[in-house]
Amino acid sequence: MIPYKTILSINRKTNQPIYIQLTNQFIKLIKQKTLPSKTRLPGSRVLAEQLGVHRKTIVACYEDLTIQGWTLSIPQKGTYVNGNIPELKQTKLSDTTEKNKKTTAGFRFKKEVILTRNFPDQTHDQDIYINDGISDPRLTPIKEIATLYRNICGKRAALDQISYGTTYGNLELRETLVSYLNETRGLNISTKNIMITRGSQMGMFLAAQLLFEKDESIIIGETNYSSSDTTFEFSGAKTLRIPVDKHGLVTDKIEALCKKHNVKALYTTSHHHHPTTVTLSAERRMHLLNLSKTYNFAIIEDDYDYDFHYENAPILPLASHDIHSNVIYVGSICKTVAPVYRVGYLIASEDFVDECAKLRRFIDRQGDALLEATFAKFIKQGALDRHIKKTIRTYKARKEYFCALLKRELAAYLTFEIPTGGMALWVQLCKKYSWENVSAIAKTQNVIFSELKRYDPQNIGHNSIRIGFAAYDFAEMDELVSRLKTTFTIIENTKTLSK
Amino acid sequence: MIPYKTILSINRKTNQPIYIQLTNQFIKLIKQKTLPSKTRLPGSRVLAEQLGVHRKTIVACYEDLTIQGWTLSIPQKGTYVNGNIPELKQTKLSDTTEKNKKTTAGFRFKKEVILTRNFPDQTHDQDIYINDGISDPRLTPIKEIATLYRNICGKRAALDQISYGTTYGNLELRETLVSYLNETRGLNISTKNIMITRGSQMGMFLAAQLLFEKDESIIIGETNYSSSDTTFEFSGAKTLRIPVDKHGLVTDKIEALCKKHNVKALYTTSHHHHPTTVTLSAERRMHLLNLSKTYNFAIIEDDYDYDFHYENAPILPLASHDIHSNVIYVGSICKTVAPVYRVGYLIASEDFVDECAKLRRFIDRQGDALLEATFAKFIKQGALDRHIKKTIRTYKARKEYFCALLKRELAAYLTFEIPTGGMALWVQLCKKYSWENVSAIAKTQNVIFSELKRYDPQNIGHNSIRIGFAAYDFAEMDELVSRLKTTFTIIENTKTLSK
Repeated sequence: MIPYKTILSINRKTNQPIYIQLTNQFIKLIKQKTLPSKTRLPGSRVLAEQLGVHRKTIVACYEDLTIQGWTLSIPQKGTYVNGNIPELKQTKLSDTTEKNKKTTAGFRFKKEVILTRNFPDQTHDQDIYINDGISDPRLTPIKEIATLYRNICGKRAALDQISYGTTYGNLELRETLVSYLNETRGLNISTKNIMITRGSQMGMFLAAQLLFEKDESIIIGETNYSSSDTTFEFSGAKTLRIPVDKHGLVTDKIEALCKKHNVKALYTTSHHHHPTTVTLSAERRMHLLNLSKTYNFAIIEDDYDYDFHYENAPILPLASHDIHSNVIYVGSICKTVAPVYRVGYLIASEDFVDECAKLRRFIDRQGDALLEATFAKFIKQGALDRHIKKTIRTYKARKEYFCALLKRELAAYLTFEIPTGGMALWVQLCKKYSWENVSAIAKTQNVIFSELKRYDPQNIGHNSIRIGFAAYDFAEMDELVSRLKTTFTIIENTKTLSK
Repeated sequence: MIPYKTILSINRKTNQPIYIQLTNQFIKLIKQKTLPSKTRLPGSRVLAEQLGVHRKTIVACYEDLTIQGWTLSIPQKGTYVNGNIPELKQTKLSDTTEKNKKTTAGFRFKKEVILTRNFPDQTHDQDIYINDGISDPRLTPIKEIATLYRNICGKRAALDQISYGTTYGNLELRETLVSYLNETRGLNISTKNIMITRGSQMGMFLAAQLLFEKDESIIIGETNYSSSDTTFEFSGAKTLRIPVDKHGLVTDKIEALCKKHNVKALYTTSHHHHPTTVTLSAERRMHLLNLSKTYNFAIIEDDYDYDFHYENAPILPLASHDIHSNVIYVGSICKTVAPVYRVGYLIASEDFVDECAKLRRFIDRQGDALLEATFAKFIKQGALDRHIKKTIRTYKARKEYFCALLKRELAAYLTFEIPTGGMALWVQLCKKYSWENVSAIAKTQNVIFSELKRYDPQNIGHNSIRIGFAAYDFAEMDELVSRLKTTFTIIENTKTLSK
């Protein structure tokens, strides 16, 4: 006789009905062959008494087992374990000693060479992380946005936004962005040219997936924003690199590549080249646009930090000059407000936008229409403009402070150009040092660099990295630079000692 | 002399500084060659007077033009249009008569055979739309969720959630879901086996992108959830179809396909097969799991409507029996609460989850950690359980009402099995009618069917479609069925007349 009272357990503290608990335990026992094929289960009255539950509970459990096919109910005879259940193949039962072993898939999948970004959990309060140019979360009007969101959700009209809907994004936000971008970026678009994305990254991903077939190419700068490299490589594109100098991409190198390869697109962060922060000159802008028309390639213009310019007027994007629809313009609000708000846009000719909107259906179905409506209001009420003005003032002051500090304290070790905008410096190390070494020693001073490789993926020897300044206040900059100075002193001393 | 006063305009009502307005207009004039190469711009004092602005405004504008490379500033001489700006190729200037023409791309891109879903803007209040099983937005606790969100955003800890972070999703939600799913679905997973997605669809997309190389296959049911078909086809997979009967996928047909093709995966909605609503039997569940081990293929289990069961206990997913990590389990909260909340999960072996999390970095960078934290609280506070209990009661009553109504009013035209769960019926039309015809006539009665093709993509002649019942209240059902009855009467009358 099977000791059901011992092998079945009932938890009265959970929300799960008791009959479901029992059903699931019976299934486990049947699968494990603890209850072999054709075993007769005890009568419902008997089992109910043993377990101290109502008989109806056992009846419901047996009914469910039979409906699911684990048992057969034979009238006048009782409930039997189904003899046709195949035994589950088991190589090994999970073992307590193996608990910490990484579980591995029982099937094959692509392990793409996907760049792993480490965003370490900031567990050590004393650590300072070097970022490549991010906004300061402390300046984000998070409560203001949440209150707007709450207000929108309280309105009757919100109900129209919460079911399945358009993959182009909330119409109010599209309309708002069309006016906003036409005014601020000199574009000339209508709502048919725009779809809302989850930030520039999704815009890039959609475009890449629709552009490239095998053996087709994209032109990028040397070096280039490494996440975009991966996005294009994942889509199957071959990346062709052209140099970047102080006027941006060297457009003179494009024509030869177009003649030799099947070039489908070029990627540019024309406003401030990522990572080097330079701006693409007017001459090269026009040259690039003309080449795209001659060779029918797309220009993917990623305007990730348009809003951050400190000295001059912002430079109009290539998209503002595009009269032939060669430009796919991607941008985002997240970079300006905070990365958590994944709200951005893709702007292009209507036919391309339509295709992207179709594809998006199969990626994440649709955006967050409530959050999109929130940002429509945020822009319309002038809150985005106010936020940009406020942060530009702060970031400009931080840039100046940081540049002066680096010049005063670390000029012996590194050089940089003062950027006219953006949130990062492109910092060259003097030849006798390497960032790898600096990074290793800096770690002992609780300064954490991440992924230096992304700034020189081709091992060309740029010996330069981006250092974001916007997210540090003055005191944090003082502390960072002081630790870096100690780092360099340690390196110097080690060198002297080893001589 | 160029009439600058006429061709330059100043708008004092916008937020855009006047010098930027002028800079952008000068750029346009230079591009259009209205200001030809080497034109000398008027002195800043002269132009300032003509336009009625401060001289400093013109100086800032000229500085910017020069920095951007549109003009050259020659000391003691003045500012000249840069002679090296290439002329922008123009095929045709935009023309008012062409304003309504669809803009087309100047580059080539894939036009995939991507299924277009029409979610028509519900502009006609009198229209009733037939859906394939969606929840009723009116039951969504939208204000409760928004208030939770607002509270979370008001806390100091929210700052840690708003910058760039992990692509696995908010840790609190992962931990909450691990307990919740282990308890409710009989899983045995840790936080290493889960990543947060934007719903089942993103889970499917990630898996598909990582599973298939050219000429590799996926097994799906005939018929199958059409969005998943497209997702797999887009990733390059070949779809192989096996029949579906009243016990679900006919697993006996799998082995032969595995021997003949390079089968990398099988897709199943085991709980309620989409579209036919049947449940995969216990016997076939075990059979399927064993086959996946023998042939090393992945089982993508999409548990889209686990929460909606009316008669019996929910059936544990295949993932609960998976001891070899062949199952990739995708699910979502959106289906249960409302589609706008794109929060779901992908559960698999650790190595596969890690790879999906890496890929996700290049799709939308990361999720909405604030919304994810909101749902962690929503689940922990028992609000999700309460919501499910409440909606199940409502949907069960609606199912019963709708089935009785259809049987009473439309039994002469259609048949269906009463489903044990889910939000839709699988409705067969009597042979002498076709859904295409019914749909066309129904439109005259303001009943809108969409995309019938997705229920029979292979033209096999199922003559069946899904009709969702959960989103209609009793009065709406009465109205819908009355209009359908009129529709069938019209069809009958037309037939009689044409005899």
